[in-house]
Amino acid sequence: MRILLTISYDGTLFFGYQVQPNKRTVQLELENALKAVTGKDIKTVASGRTDSGVHALNQKVHFDYDGTIPVKNFVNALNSVLPEDLRVKKAQKVKSDFSARYSAKTKTYLYRCYLDKIENPLLSRYVHTIKYEIDVSKVKECASVLVGEHDFKCFLASGSSVKNTVRTIYEIKVKKSGKHLDFYVTGNGFLYNMVRILVGTLLAVGENKLSIKAVKNALISGERKGLGKTMPAKALCLYKVEY
Amino acid sequence: MRILLTISYDGTLFFGYQVQPNKRTVQLELENALKAVTGKDIKTVASGRTDSGVHALNQKVHFDYDGTIPVKNFVNALNSVLPEDLRVKKAQKVKSDFSARYSAKTKTYLYRCYLDKIENPLLSRYVHTIKYEIDVSKVKECASVLVGEHDFKCFLASGSSVKNTVRTIYEIKVKKSGKHLDFYVTGNGFLYNMVRILVGTLLAVGENKLSIKAVKNALISGERKGLGKTMPAKALCLYKVEY
Repeated sequence: MRILLTISYDGTLFFGYQVQPNKRTVQLELENALKAVTGKDIKTVASGRTDSGVHALNQKVHFDYDGTIPVKNFVNALNSVLPEDLRVKKAQKVKSDFSARYSAKTKTYLYRCYLDKIENPLLSRYVHTIKYEIDVSKVKECASVLVGEHDFKCFLASGSSVKNTVRTIYEIKVKKSGKHLDFYVTGNGFLYNMVRILVGTLLAVGENKLSIKAVKNALISGERKGLGKTMPAKALCLYKVEY
Repeated sequence: MRILLTISYDGTLFFGYQVQPNKRTVQLELENALKAVTGKDIKTVASGRTDSGVHALNQKVHFDYDGTIPVKNFVNALNSVLPEDLRVKKAQKVKSDFSARYSAKTKTYLYRCYLDKIENPLLSRYVHTIKYEIDVSKVKECASVLVGEHDFKCFLASGSSVKNTVRTIYEIKVKKSGKHLDFYVTGNGFLYNMVRILVGTLLAVGENKLSIKAVKNALISGERKGLGKTMPAKALCLYKVEY
């Protein structure tokens, strides 16, 4: 039987999703909990990795299980052994050919900024504070340029060896509410660090340090040079995965 | 010259506001920062202590200073040496007879609950999760009973030796928004643990475990017995102090 979990985590104290030797990762904690609950060594497959420090509200993870515990019992059973910064929200039976990774149609990441001269200690684990003025209308205008199918090579972190850099962004929602400036980026997939570089680029445009024309040119040339910086991980959150 | 600071802090990793031997407290970090910035040993006076784990959005603190640093420079100077979980939001000159503690007219505390079967790891440092059904109209009805000048002896934590237990609550605002249930409690002062017992009592009423009549009787008798439990510190925040 294949089971799909919806999980959420505070990424602050995790070295990302994927298992790494001698590091505390989400996958490690989750598989330890599955072992404690089922007595079995169970390998999980997530919709994708999240980097060190990145949070998730609705990460999706599947695994195969042939024991007697009813699916509906997994939520409480796992939460009773998981650490406080990792929670299972839902467990559901899926078809045996369903994959949390390969069946994913779209992913939405949320990047949260806070516009103030001084950080708010009650938010600072989860937001990036921006102390300068931002022209939100310019940010939105630039966002609309990036929506669609493009070769996003210029938004690829250096050192990444991925070959196909064409991705489709379905929507970039820029939402300003009080001091909060949130970016919801929905696409069919993202290159390594792509969302963080994309938000850095939108903010550079909003700060009048970068023109929208330069962003268009970078999309064409594939050159990272001159685009915005890679934004810090702590304000990024895997918001939704759709199948 | 007397200077009044507005500060905010994430209380999670502090042993409360007030200096204690060998403990990390807000006062200790703040006075260390004042020493680093001014070179002087400066004693601070806060509007009141906050307990271990309690947060503050707008705590007020005064101190006397006779050096040459302009008042307006204190915000950035202090923030440059303070840890991330403590921030100075404002520094202003006040009269020499002003006291952050004794001049305070009202204080507002915010207690934040989150109504869901499963904790949200991205909120759990700052909210108390309630997994059972709450009758919000009953909570509001009971809150209205507590507003006014009363002897709040029944809401006093055991072991406290305060003599005068009469306080005035000006307002209890119960705000439900989505899964959030927030309590804003404004009064001229609060007994030790009073807000946390008060919220525990309102929730017991909302859960139909306690009648409003029993709460009225406790106010008259001064007996804590039968009232709600003391709620956890982590969801409490000193929201505002007014002078």
